[in-house]
Amino acid sequence: MTNLTVNNASRDQLYLEDIQVGQKFGSAGQAVDEAQIKAFATQFDPQPFHLDEQAARNSIFGGLAASGWHTAAITMRLMVDSGAPIAGGLVGVGCEISWPIPTRPGDILNVESEVLEVTASRSRADRGIVTIRTKTFNQRGEVVQIMTAKLIVFRRPAPNSTGQVK
Amino acid sequence: MTNLTVNNASRDQLYLEDIQVGQKFGSAGQAVDEAQIKAFATQFDPQPFHLDEQAARNSIFGGLAASGWHTAAITMRLMVDSGAPIAGGLVGVGCEISWPIPTRPGDILNVESEVLEVTASRSRADRGIVTIRTKTFNQRGEVVQIMTAKLIVFRRPAPNSTGQVK
Repeated sequence: MTNLTVNNASRDQLYLEDIQVGQKFGSAGQAVDEAQIKAFATQFDPQPFHLDEQAARNSIFGGLAASGWHTAAITMRLMVDSGAPIAGGLVGVGCEISWPIPTRPGDILNVESEVLEVTASRSRADRGIVTIRTKTFNQRGEVVQIMTAKLIVFRRPAPNSTGQVK
Repeated sequence: MTNLTVNNASRDQLYLEDIQVGQKFGSAGQAVDEAQIKAFATQFDPQPFHLDEQAARNSIFGGLAASGWHTAAITMRLMVDSGAPIAGGLVGVGCEISWPIPTRPGDILNVESEVLEVTASRSRADRGIVTIRTKTFNQRGEVVQIMTAKLIVFRRPAPNSTGQVK
């Protein structure tokens, strides 16, 4: 029993063979409000500019700003719910991230992903690494995060296999 | 009024001039339990291997695993509370992350940071970029995350200034 809300469950799942360089994936939008920004920061990044408007005005951000890790976490949620429906799930081995500008209260974020590279594993025949660049936009089309991630993606199981991804 | 819990407030704050290549910073420890892993995943990374033991056993992780973003968020909390006490706060422009192994229920995480590079800004006399590599360890000394981040760090304000960081 899980409380999954993965809309991807109803979409065609993509295996390594289905993914090509240049392929793009969009997402739905997600609104981010002040309460969410402060709740995330209270738990994971309790710095004044993520918690308090007055302190934030006098900081480098010039106003309340979401933690970059909050932007990253929301980006992940958008990718899981409505981004590339990778079979076996989105499993990253690592990534590069930059945050050109912060997410602000009232922003509505969406993501666009593009496949940069597809590489078969040399040591494991059942999988490969897909490099995907995902840009996170606010409602004005400004980029709040650029992430280039390496994902483990499995090949389609042979028809006579159990279909279970190990 | 904020609900800050920044222990760093009571420690000497570091300006750009105080930071040297090779300098190291530790942290306290933070325990991560199954409920926290599932709560984070429910909100930000609702994939079966982060939410459900049975599904996780049949996944690439072989058992319940924290989202990499949860590991990153806990790492940030440890850095804010007890890592390098950077004046003006920990403000990253970007980073590289890898997750060699996942965080598991029952793990106790701590971080160790090392300064790799200190670069004065060419365009702004009041600041620079400090590159810090932070490794996140579990209680067995295994590395669950390696992050190399670029932080904005301010120079010490002149004695006759307001001391306000802009």
